[in-house]
Amino acid sequence: MEKSVIVGVDIGGTSVKLGIFDIEGNVIEKWEIKTRKVEKGAFILHDISNSINEMIRKKGISKTSVKGVGMGVPGPVMPNGFVEICPNLGWREMNPAKILSGFLGGIPVRASNDANVAALGELWKGGASGYKTAVMFTLGTGVGGGIIMDGKVVNGIHGLSGELGHMTVNPSEEVQCNCKNHGCLEQYASATGVVRIVRRILEKNDADSCLRRAEYLSSKVVFDAAIDGDMIAGLAVDTLCMYLGMACANCAFIVDPEVFVFGGGVSKAGDFLIEGIKKYYYKFTTLTNKKAELKLATLGNDAGIYGAAKLMF
Amino acid sequence: MEKSVIVGVDIGGTSVKLGIFDIEGNVIEKWEIKTRKVEKGAFILHDISNSINEMIRKKGISKTSVKGVGMGVPGPVMPNGFVEICPNLGWREMNPAKILSGFLGGIPVRASNDANVAALGELWKGGASGYKTAVMFTLGTGVGGGIIMDGKVVNGIHGLSGELGHMTVNPSEEVQCNCKNHGCLEQYASATGVVRIVRRILEKNDADSCLRRAEYLSSKVVFDAAIDGDMIAGLAVDTLCMYLGMACANCAFIVDPEVFVFGGGVSKAGDFLIEGIKKYYYKFTTLTNKKAELKLATLGNDAGIYGAAKLMF
Repeated sequence: MEKSVIVGVDIGGTSVKLGIFDIEGNVIEKWEIKTRKVEKGAFILHDISNSINEMIRKKGISKTSVKGVGMGVPGPVMPNGFVEICPNLGWREMNPAKILSGFLGGIPVRASNDANVAALGELWKGGASGYKTAVMFTLGTGVGGGIIMDGKVVNGIHGLSGELGHMTVNPSEEVQCNCKNHGCLEQYASATGVVRIVRRILEKNDADSCLRRAEYLSSKVVFDAAIDGDMIAGLAVDTLCMYLGMACANCAFIVDPEVFVFGGGVSKAGDFLIEGIKKYYYKFTTLTNKKAELKLATLGNDAGIYGAAKLMF
Repeated sequence: MEKSVIVGVDIGGTSVKLGIFDIEGNVIEKWEIKTRKVEKGAFILHDISNSINEMIRKKGISKTSVKGVGMGVPGPVMPNGFVEICPNLGWREMNPAKILSGFLGGIPVRASNDANVAALGELWKGGASGYKTAVMFTLGTGVGGGIIMDGKVVNGIHGLSGELGHMTVNPSEEVQCNCKNHGCLEQYASATGVVRIVRRILEKNDADSCLRRAEYLSSKVVFDAAIDGDMIAGLAVDTLCMYLGMACANCAFIVDPEVFVFGGGVSKAGDFLIEGIKKYYYKFTTLTNKKAELKLATLGNDAGIYGAAKLMF
């Protein structure tokens, strides 16, 4: 008897990552293709379908062995799979899961938001494995997030749950966020956010800092300097950790998860970041939700294909 | 054949409310008893059991017709019904649902946090009826909350979900909250909070206000003055609405519900309050979660017994 497989698809603005998984959740093959965004993204699902067919042929897997395809979409997905608008791909008013299923001859397909799917991947095989309820922050250029409860992705009624980067954490902020609001978490806890904080501190503070002589300021440069004891860098990281710890506490007062997971480029700062966030998480939680764990993501860019596949398990 | 009934129990610090419901969710009888808090609350469940037995005897309902008892507890309840600590009643390390079930000869009993249960009641028969996913704020002396997803109470892993009053909404606040933190929602959006805001504005602002001549400042006095056009009262209500609208927006970015429901004494200000919150909710949400409804609770003090009963449906 032939073995069953599940395909996980993680659609990004630049590339689509794909993975074939066996029933135990082991990767049989993973690969990626370009995201063709022309014609309002009309070719993306077709390309995915062709690429899956090609790869299973190459691996000698029959079409009937493919039991399902899970898909992460870089935008809001309603609980029924409907996508109202996805500017990252050009999509509008469509149900990508239904369409991909049609292209694949009726194989069941489920879709969810990419950040929620990445959180599910981390819960299944990554930094949050062994837990059932998790909140994940993806700290990249922006801040994304995903919520998992009882092992299931929380999509939200409008497909917008887990948009953690746009929680307001500082209503007194004067600078505007990309979303036009003021004081969003993303303005402090992203790679661009921490650099912005550093520039602000450097302007207002006369203290010496290796960052004044840095050719290029990035989140990595700032964190490395903070780890080396640079005072200005330390202040900036502390600000990031304060707002992130506060955002975690606010999540805890709402959904009270077992674990918080941190992924994305900024999370490469590792335990130094986790310890910084913990300090403020403990400050802003006063009840027993202090017990929640704070952990690093471990799957990196593969979290999406794992979580997408898990949608079908 | 005798009709089946469900009993809803809402345990408060002063009194326990009870209700007998038929299978359609209609109240057959409701009543209350005192909460005996002596001996670390050891008599409370016994009193409830006796009172239920007495009432069903009086109403001619047989014990076998009672299909279940749902119970709201004024403190954190773990998903398995365990209560670690409930200072309001004196309880520690016990499973009240199991104990009450034992007293009642094995009738199934489920327990959940009272604010979550009240939210469930509003979803079932009150201001949020017809919806499946709701966030409820109870604006009383303090601020409580409840989260319902897909028609079910979200307890949280440590029984602490929906503790919305202790979300930090203003990290710059200098005054301490009862919980020892600074800038909790409860410091602005409760009956005591809005009075505190008024006193602060009256100190800093020379403008005339009927509130300067008020014998007694209460949330009702402040809202009535604001509705009458008093500028200082208006500013205070606007501050309350700003923080509450922001807290709703933050909830929307996390769980993205269909509806927000507002209960408790402060919500008696009615549509004036809802319109004020909406103004800021729309400001702080930038995406399609603007679509969520904002509504008043309608069950008042009965929300708890309705929601408790619903736990067993």
